[in-house]
Amino acid sequence: LDLRAVRTLKLQVHYLGTNYHGWQIQPGCPTVQGLVEAALSRLTGEKVRISGAGRTDAGVHARGQVASFTTASSIPTHGILLGANSFLPGDIRVMSVEEAGAGFHARHHALSKEYAYRFSTRRVLSPFLSRTVESLRGDLEIAPMERAAGHFLGRHDFTAFCGPEGRRKDAVREVTLSRFGEEPEGVHVYRISANGFLQYLVRTIVGTLFEVGRGRIDPDSIPGILASRDRTRAGPTAAPRGLTLEQVRYPEGM
Amino acid sequence: LDLRAVRTLKLQVHYLGTNYHGWQIQPGCPTVQGLVEAALSRLTGEKVRISGAGRTDAGVHARGQVASFTTASSIPTHGILLGANSFLPGDIRVMSVEEAGAGFHARHHALSKEYAYRFSTRRVLSPFLSRTVESLRGDLEIAPMERAAGHFLGRHDFTAFCGPEGRRKDAVREVTLSRFGEEPEGVHVYRISANGFLQYLVRTIVGTLFEVGRGRIDPDSIPGILASRDRTRAGPTAAPRGLTLEQVRYPEGM
Repeated sequence: LDLRAVRTLKLQVHYLGTNYHGWQIQPGCPTVQGLVEAALSRLTGEKVRISGAGRTDAGVHARGQVASFTTASSIPTHGILLGANSFLPGDIRVMSVEEAGAGFHARHHALSKEYAYRFSTRRVLSPFLSRTVESLRGDLEIAPMERAAGHFLGRHDFTAFCGPEGRRKDAVREVTLSRFGEEPEGVHVYRISANGFLQYLVRTIVGTLFEVGRGRIDPDSIPGILASRDRTRAGPTAAPRGLTLEQVRYPEGM
Repeated sequence: LDLRAVRTLKLQVHYLGTNYHGWQIQPGCPTVQGLVEAALSRLTGEKVRISGAGRTDAGVHARGQVASFTTASSIPTHGILLGANSFLPGDIRVMSVEEAGAGFHARHHALSKEYAYRFSTRRVLSPFLSRTVESLRGDLEIAPMERAAGHFLGRHDFTAFCGPEGRRKDAVREVTLSRFGEEPEGVHVYRISANGFLQYLVRTIVGTLFEVGRGRIDPDSIPGILASRDRTRAGPTAAPRGLTLEQVRYPEGM
């Protein structure tokens, strides 16, 4: 291996998570990382390992996943883009490939990530939306949900809002965006940005906000639930279908 | 059959046309009309026949198809909505059911219909878009396409822009909207409204506009092509994937 010839490449990857066991490679399960690595390995003739910025769970989508890998291959970026896609199923697309600085790492260098959770309370969900929008029975009151969402802004210990893997580590994260918006055809979207996420964090926040919308959790009880670090006080984990990794931000020039 | 008890119902139907041989019922082929009729027949115990406002071709989608049928069933509209959907595949959804005036007919009473054709010239099409957006190789110049689109406005004989079935009848139609717009992720959309459509009309207009965008047909040659009534002078028929029936308009109160 000629070290001078080693390149670091940065990929943008979009995928529908419906048919995959999430991002992270798992023996015997189709995962996005596994399929992208297999495509790049086939293309370059090397055993490629990629790092993804966000480890999305089974069924979760990405419109802005970023991944990085190193290679000694001299295939131009355009050839990697077209070649990788030719080996990938249609619900996973490498959207761009660019040269990155030596040492660039998609996860370690990420400053923040933004996720969106889409849901609808209409009686029937359009087939144009059903893969990426969660359909909920019954009415939700959005105003108290918006109030509750504001309490997640800032620096908090999110132990009460994450899965068992998240509770095993330091769960302090800084949330810089937490608010609701609207999209066509009656779709509500909750957007959250943070400097890092924990297992099931977005889906547990969303499941809790749904309970607020149903009047079962008071919007102003969020600070107390955060302080309790008690997972049983938050709401259930919302289904993965509505969740999409939307964007990963890096320091300028990276 | 108690005639006093016969109801006329109006349905809004959304579907992804990808897996269907179009709207119109055909023996031995899965069609949207066939599946909706089967669902309604199962639900009501009658042999239901529905009329659709637009006979979309194989692979064409609808976000605003309207259909009507008569029934002696007393099932409330809400029950028909939920019941029909329970018998339909997920890529076809009855979005609403309402009582219509006696004699209402989804096709005969339609004042105008609007179709949208979506396309992208980006190198890679996101998997979130690939079912309903046509992907084109090479650059297209949109400005001459917009100029050409304007020539379709008004009352014209569209013989040069339709398939063999359309050429067998009076091909004069009035176009009230014909213009380009933009949607997120670099998607271009061409929208056309008319008081009626002919076989392959939208797709032949779009295929011709693509030739204009590639510099192969002059935008100002459209009036001459229309006047020629010669199908060989127009462009090829664009692929169905990008086409969606968006809306059907009726006289007020219908």
